[in-house]
Amino acid sequence: MTVGVWIIGARGNVASVSMTGARAIARGVADTTGMVTAREPVAALDLPAVDDLVFGGHDIRSQRIEETAEEMAGHGGVVAPDTLDAVREDLREIDERVELGTARRCGEAVEGMSSETTGEDVSVADIVEEIRADYAAFADSQGVDRLVVVNAASTEPPIPTPGDYDTLAAFETAVERDDPNLPASALYAYAALLDGHPYVNFTPSTGSSLGGLRELAERNEVPHMGRDGKTGETLMKSALGPMFAGRNLRVLSWEGHNILGNSDGLVLEDDANKAGKIESKGSLLDDILGYETHNAVRIDYTPSLGDWKTAWDHVHFEGFLGTEMKMQFTWEGADSALAAPLVLDLVRLAALADERGEGGTMSHLASFFKSPEGVDRHELSEQFRLLYDYAERHAEGA
Amino acid sequence: MTVGVWIIGARGNVASVSMTGARAIARGVADTTGMVTAREPVAALDLPAVDDLVFGGHDIRSQRIEETAEEMAGHGGVVAPDTLDAVREDLREIDERVELGTARRCGEAVEGMSSETTGEDVSVADIVEEIRADYAAFADSQGVDRLVVVNAASTEPPIPTPGDYDTLAAFETAVERDDPNLPASALYAYAALLDGHPYVNFTPSTGSSLGGLRELAERNEVPHMGRDGKTGETLMKSALGPMFAGRNLRVLSWEGHNILGNSDGLVLEDDANKAGKIESKGSLLDDILGYETHNAVRIDYTPSLGDWKTAWDHVHFEGFLGTEMKMQFTWEGADSALAAPLVLDLVRLAALADERGEGGTMSHLASFFKSPEGVDRHELSEQFRLLYDYAERHAEGA
Amino acid sequence: MTVGVWIIGARGNVASVSMTGARAIARGVADTTGMVTAREPVAALDLPAVDDLVFGGHDIRSQRIEETAEEMAGHGGVVAPDTLDAVREDLREIDERVELGTARRCGEAVEGMSSETTGEDVSVADIVEEIRADYAAFADSQGVDRLVVVNAASTEPPIPTPGDYDTLAAFETAVERDDPNLPASALYAYAALLDGHPYVNFTPSTGSSLGGLRELAERNEVPHMGRDGKTGETLMKSALGPMFAGRNLRVLSWEGHNILGNSDGLVLEDDANKAGKIESKGSLLDDILGYETHNAVRIDYTPSLGDWKTAWDHVHFEGFLGTEMKMQFTWEGADSALAAPLVLDLVRLAALADERGEGGTMSHLASFFKSPEGVDRHELSEQFRLLYDYAERHAEGA
Amino acid sequence: MTVGVWIIGARGNVASVSMTGARAIARGVADTTGMVTAREPVAALDLPAVDDLVFGGHDIRSQRIEETAEEMAGHGGVVAPDTLDAVREDLREIDERVELGTARRCGEAVEGMSSETTGEDVSVADIVEEIRADYAAFADSQGVDRLVVVNAASTEPPIPTPGDYDTLAAFETAVERDDPNLPASALYAYAALLDGHPYVNFTPSTGSSLGGLRELAERNEVPHMGRDGKTGETLMKSALGPMFAGRNLRVLSWEGHNILGNSDGLVLEDDANKAGKIESKGSLLDDILGYETHNAVRIDYTPSLGDWKTAWDHVHFEGFLGTEMKMQFTWEGADSALAAPLVLDLVRLAALADERGEGGTMSHLASFFKSPEGVDRHELSEQFRLLYDYAERHAEGA
Ligand SMILES: NC(=O)c1ccc[n+]([C@@H]2O[C@H](COP(=O)([O-])OP(=O)(O)OC[C@H]3O[C@@H](n4cnc5c(N)ncnc54)[C@H](O)[C@@H]3O)[C@@H](O)[C@H]2O)c1
Ligand SMILES: NC(=O)c1ccc[n+]([C@@H]2O[C@H](COP(=O)([O-])OP(=O)(O)OC[C@H]3O[C@@H](n4cnc5c(N)ncnc54)[C@H](O)[C@@H]3O)[C@@H](O)[C@H]2O)c1
Ligand SMILES: NC(=O)c1ccc[n+]([C@@H]2O[C@H](COP(=O)([O-])OP(=O)(O)OC[C@H]3O[C@@H](n4cnc5c(N)ncnc54)[C@H](O)[C@@H]3O)[C@@H](O)[C@H]2O)c1
Ligand SMILES: NC(=O)c1ccc[n+]([C@@H]2O[C@H](COP(=O)([O-])OP(=O)(O)OC[C@H]3O[C@@H](n4cnc5c(N)ncnc54)[C@H](O)[C@@H]3O)[C@@H](O)[C@H]2O)c1
Ligand code: NA
Ligand code: NA
Repeated sequence: MTVGVWIIGARGNVASVSMTGARAIARGVADTTGMVTAREPVAALDLPAVDDLVFGGHDIRSQRIEETAEEMAGHGGVVAPDTLDAVREDLREIDERVELGTARRCGEAVEGMSSETTGEDVSVADIVEEIRADYAAFADSQGVDRLVVVNAASTEPPIPTPGDYDTLAAFETAVERDDPNLPASALYAYAALLDGHPYVNFTPSTGSSLGGLRELAERNEVPHMGRDGKTGETLMKSALGPMFAGRNLRVLSWEGHNILGNSDGLVLEDDANKAGKIESKGSLLDDILGYETHNAVRIDYTPSLGDWKTAWDHVHFEGFLGTEMKMQFTWEGADSALAAPLVLDLVRLAALADERGEGGTMSHLASFFKSPEGVDRHELSEQFRLLYDYAERHAEGA
Repeated sequence: MTVGVWIIGARGNVASVSMTGARAIARGVADTTGMVTAREPVAALDLPAVDDLVFGGHDIRSQRIEETAEEMAGHGGVVAPDTLDAVREDLREIDERVELGTARRCGEAVEGMSSETTGEDVSVADIVEEIRADYAAFADSQGVDRLVVVNAASTEPPIPTPGDYDTLAAFETAVERDDPNLPASALYAYAALLDGHPYVNFTPSTGSSLGGLRELAERNEVPHMGRDGKTGETLMKSALGPMFAGRNLRVLSWEGHNILGNSDGLVLEDDANKAGKIESKGSLLDDILGYETHNAVRIDYTPSLGDWKTAWDHVHFEGFLGTEMKMQFTWEGADSALAAPLVLDLVRLAALADERGEGGTMSHLASFFKSPEGVDRHELSEQFRLLYDYAERHAEGA
Repeated sequence: MTVGVWIIGARGNVASVSMTGARAIARGVADTTGMVTAREPVAALDLPAVDDLVFGGHDIRSQRIEETAEEMAGHGGVVAPDTLDAVREDLREIDERVELGTARRCGEAVEGMSSETTGEDVSVADIVEEIRADYAAFADSQGVDRLVVVNAASTEPPIPTPGDYDTLAAFETAVERDDPNLPASALYAYAALLDGHPYVNFTPSTGSSLGGLRELAERNEVPHMGRDGKTGETLMKSALGPMFAGRNLRVLSWEGHNILGNSDGLVLEDDANKAGKIESKGSLLDDILGYETHNAVRIDYTPSLGDWKTAWDHVHFEGFLGTEMKMQFTWEGADSALAAPLVLDLVRLAALADERGEGGTMSHLASFFKSPEGVDRHELSEQFRLLYDYAERHAEGA
Repeated sequence: MTVGVWIIGARGNVASVSMTGARAIARGVADTTGMVTAREPVAALDLPAVDDLVFGGHDIRSQRIEETAEEMAGHGGVVAPDTLDAVREDLREIDERVELGTARRCGEAVEGMSSETTGEDVSVADIVEEIRADYAAFADSQGVDRLVVVNAASTEPPIPTPGDYDTLAAFETAVERDDPNLPASALYAYAALLDGHPYVNFTPSTGSSLGGLRELAERNEVPHMGRDGKTGETLMKSALGPMFAGRNLRVLSWEGHNILGNSDGLVLEDDANKAGKIESKGSLLDDILGYETHNAVRIDYTPSLGDWKTAWDHVHFEGFLGTEMKMQFTWEGADSALAAPLVLDLVRLAALADERGEGGTMSHLASFFKSPEGVDRHELSEQFRLLYDYAERHAEGA
């Protein structure tokens, strides 16, 4: 059973490291450390093998996947040179299947990256048709049983009024009317859900997080989930927040300072695009603590660090008899090495949900996201519990 | 319904801050921040009010509770001066009810602290009788409905062969034979369980953690639990360990360095006594991760820091494609301010369990301890779940 | 020999803690830890005794010095309650000598703080005369031998074109023409230098850092120095920068994140005012390293921290064979407790320079400032060397 | 002018990375970042070019230099693979010139490393002759103008009574009497100084730090210096100590925790060997501060970290009005990448001193060492000043 994986942003860091890793695993030169679906109880599920994943995608830049992977191998040592050499051929083949995407309403920082893209003079409806055609051509040419669409493209600015697209009818009217506010990520999602392809949004961009697209997914019984992969600082907050709450230690302030130097970091220098990322990092803590507190997150582009994101968090809290205490942590992780295995996990789990006809939002995938659709519990343990319960349910009733 | 609270180590930091806090809450000059039982869903239980707790205890030093509380107010500012002033009278009254304890087999560091103690020339059986008499005299004189015994005495060296006391019969034979290995903490526990007093062991010392005493507790249907309160570094490990495990991030080494300057820190300078503390901090991570890894903990006495324990932990882990990453945290907390509210929580919950006739180990209290008796799950979320399920069960079936 | 100390911003944190400390030392309830002039070789100089300093000043708020000192005692414990009690009387006397200042062109954040201030409808020349009169009245009423004026007022926004006041003539024409760009700090400085009072600028505001005022100081042989006291992160940079330079370790990026919650922090929330502080923190590193590098400083107002400024710095550097390495530090200091003793040092040293007729910029005070006037060496050791050479020169030629 | 460089411990990490770097610079595939002698004002000296350094040495292990360099390239990425490839030939040639050393009295940890070594059944005098012969054979075979001997061998345990060798006569008598306490490092040094070869001791071992050998160096006018290269935590202490002292901030405790996983770290697991390292790290702070304070250093072997030494230091200090504050830093550096360039610097500077007939201890090299011979100033700036003054003196009087 081969599963097609169509990555929006195929030539970016997360996509390139995901595909490099998948092919390295398939060629026996890398293990599955970092993959949630490689560990019990999730590993017990009847998931498509990593070896059987066939990749393609959209991008708006011409830098090839192999070049992106070389940057990853050179600078931070995220990909070992001999691991890369073992899969260069595969990456070149995948690259040939990458189609030019649309950068519609992605903000100046993103538009500045692409040589030329569809979308400027083409109607929204035509863009959607082109995307659907690209998906279909890939699925047919590769003879895949199922196609999963993953958004790992650059972060778009948040759209001003998501409420305008609360129903499928409203969304489709906007498509017909060439609504200027419809961002590329929503069009990629719409095209996927129209043709029954499961959709996963690893970015903070809009994607399928609109009422109209949720309605479409339910109607077509297509599984989808988003948004914004949880890899570093927010993952730590979702693990540590419940400790302060559970021991009734009052958080007085939680300050976070992120420095990174990869292209995602450069895009986030543009305040408009950054707004999307900061928003999805924000409210999580207030939900876990059950009260509002001073909770600021800064992201600063620091070129020298490349993919190595360093997050410093300083938590000032009050305990018994007003005693004020502090906890600080520094997270030093390679962003793409943390994100890539999660993309493979999400593809395998989405393919299984599709195979079992489980349409709509995949709440059991909450632990993978900073802002999980339709799930209001943000404790990492609670989110892991949703995944383990799903795995245990499905493992028995195989 | 008044509940007597008999604290072993009544004049120490943890005990003094617990009692100062309880009386400050009763006199309306402090709130319950830091108390687990003051927060939903546990607060919904029908627990004895903090105001109704009546304190007494054993100690082997003469420094009065008020003097210990003054040290806490002066140096690190754990107790605000006006909070202390509001309860000086109460602390003096409690102090009059403190009896001389036994420092039998507590190691040189502890024996060096006490002027004169019972136990040297007195038989083990007589020591037990004296302890029982002290408990009874206090319960009668204060007309309490229930007496809870809490061990917050200095850390004893671990006993060489706990297996020797696997049955009540074996334990009672050892008492009769003046077994030299029976430590003070086990005698205090034995005396409590004999007369049906719930027993809580906040220290890493032996206490009731012997087969024979577990058998006694079951036979007399007396609730008991231990051991070693979880307040700082180990609390963080139990919250963060599951994050690395859940994301299949392989921990290569977890190094911890604790510096503190209070009397507990001084006692732990003695390698024999330290062994008890290190042992109970140790195996927790291997259980959570599911594999053995390099996991070292150091404790260094640093006088200038007083009660302010600073723990630096350095976690080196491997992710996807062998990428090595790091997370470091520094925990800066006032040990006694973290421990004190938990002692009050444990007393209230033990009193409830006793009132409901729930004898034996109180597994729902696992989250309070580094080495929870009879509970093999070390994830903080799992342990909180045991407490919340207990609370929800009891809240309904009131 | 009594020395008058006139502090601009007399009711602020730095001023209040300086005066509380001076009077506590005079009354024998505090030692001189933290004072540079209390340590060899500087202590060998014939400096005015702290006991002989007589305080007065300007402010634009009505909150009394005693109240500010109480905030300092309460929250962070910077001033011990009994130290404060010993000097309450002195602080009340000083408070009576505080005159209403001018908040001319200090930016909205500052203007928002003052009830009513001179300056709105009064000509610049008249403001200057009022300030001169206030200085003179204080000097006469207290019978001081010498009056030192210190600026510890809130940070002003930088003025757009300091070059407009390059000569004394140009400055005095601007005064006559009610130049709207002349900020309060320049008027306080001008008034001091006109009447021969040594002037010290502890803030990043303009103060005497204008060509015209340097000319006036030289002409009237009045010692002056500034600007922006060096107390935390910048102090560390000036100590650590030379280590990276001296070992030819190439700094790739130096990121600093400051969080603080005192009123200075609130003022710095206003980007205009913050610009002044950031600018003076900026270029220092490039001078020490001898090349430009990625060097960003953030300041975030975090109310819960009060006076306790925490600075996290992350230094990414390259060594032999391109090996990339990192050094991080966290500085946790009480801003006012660090600044206050330096104000007393600067007053004593300015008084000595004045007594010895050493007019113009006091380059030997470079180590006290982030942007020392007329000194281009930023290594802390070089700046200490200037001070120690001055002390050794003067100690011999007594 | 070719300079022979004979490294004791030639196949270790520091030596291998030094030689790999020197050859990479000579072959134009690496720059001189990290080398003190490549930066003004030291670069102005007429030093032997790195290209002209010819390497040989002693070791007691058989693992070849190329294998050690491969470990460095693989694990931490200290040597880039293509840099290593460019110099493999050179490393193989050097390896052929490595002679078997003596592991006399180097402690079990070291003796365990060597297959078989000279010294067990050979008299001390014969060992010295063999070493002298090895030096001479190398110098002749390579036709070098000058031979510098550098000790980069594993840390030896400190010798019990260094005072026994206070004069050359006493030392030479001990040699004749096969004194069991004479360690290998002293014999290597003695052999060098006898034949006029400048000697540098980069390790904490005894080396030439004996009265008798200082006398020999003076008599033969041979430059020598030691001991224990200053690369990480101690370098930071020597830069930050003077900041606390200069601002009269009283250090209450300075705790250091070092974790590393290279072979040096393994040797230091043996308390005897560790004693040497800890001792040389110890007294430096008390000298800089001018008073004794709580100053503890721990070193823990953490295999997963390899050459990447992480040092966490926690400084608790008191400022004005008894205000207690804290500064923490984490140094994350590749030990060998920090040490290697300093070895090249020391060789070039020792060769120049020898060429100029400057016999005895080279005090101008103090900044390179944790315990610089004959220099009692430990401030890094003071030590850099000695080097810069030497460079300026020699640059003029060329
Ligand atoms: N790395 C992580 O830990 C992490 C975590 C959570 C979320 N994310 C998100 O994942 C996304 C990718 O991150 P990255 O580091 O790979 O960024 P990247 O900049 O390396 O890659 C993004 C790729 O998307 C392409 N792209 C941009 N707009 C496009 C469009 N409209 N259509 C098709 N392609 C487009 C770009 O050309 C680029 O190749 C970002 O949105 C990021 O915020 C990353
Ligand atoms: N503070 C924390 O965060 C924390 C966390 C977990 C466990 N603990 C444990 O709690 C205990 C108390 O800690 P502390 O900081 O209050 O120590 P402490 O030294 O301040 O107090 C211990 C008290 O016990 C008394 N004592 C010793 N032996 C005794 C005996 N045989 N009988 C009666 N009294 C005796 C001592 O005289 C002293 O007054 C220690 O075992 C410690 O390891 C503390
Ligand atoms: N604390 C430190 O470590 C430190 C270090 C370097 C520089 N500084 C500078 O010192 C200054 C004072 O810091 P702080 O913490 O005391 O601030 P603060 O806000 O506590 O005190 C400033 C005082 O100045 C008064 N003021 C404002 N404008 C005035 C004017 N025009 N005339 C007279 N009074 C005026 C305010 O009313 C307030 O009382 C700031 O500029 C700060 O940036 C402080
Ligand atoms: N790396 C640093 O930052 C640093 C800093 C200061 C001091 N040092 C010191 O430098 C020395 C070398 O460090 P390393 O990391 O290269 O250690 P290493 O263990 O990698 O290398 C030491 C080499 O010395 C050899 N050796 C041991 N005893 C010998 C003897 N008697 N004769 C000849 N060879 C012998 C060993 O076989 C090994 O090859 C150690 O003493 C270390 O403490 C290192
Ligand atoms: Na603890
Ligand atoms: Na500062």
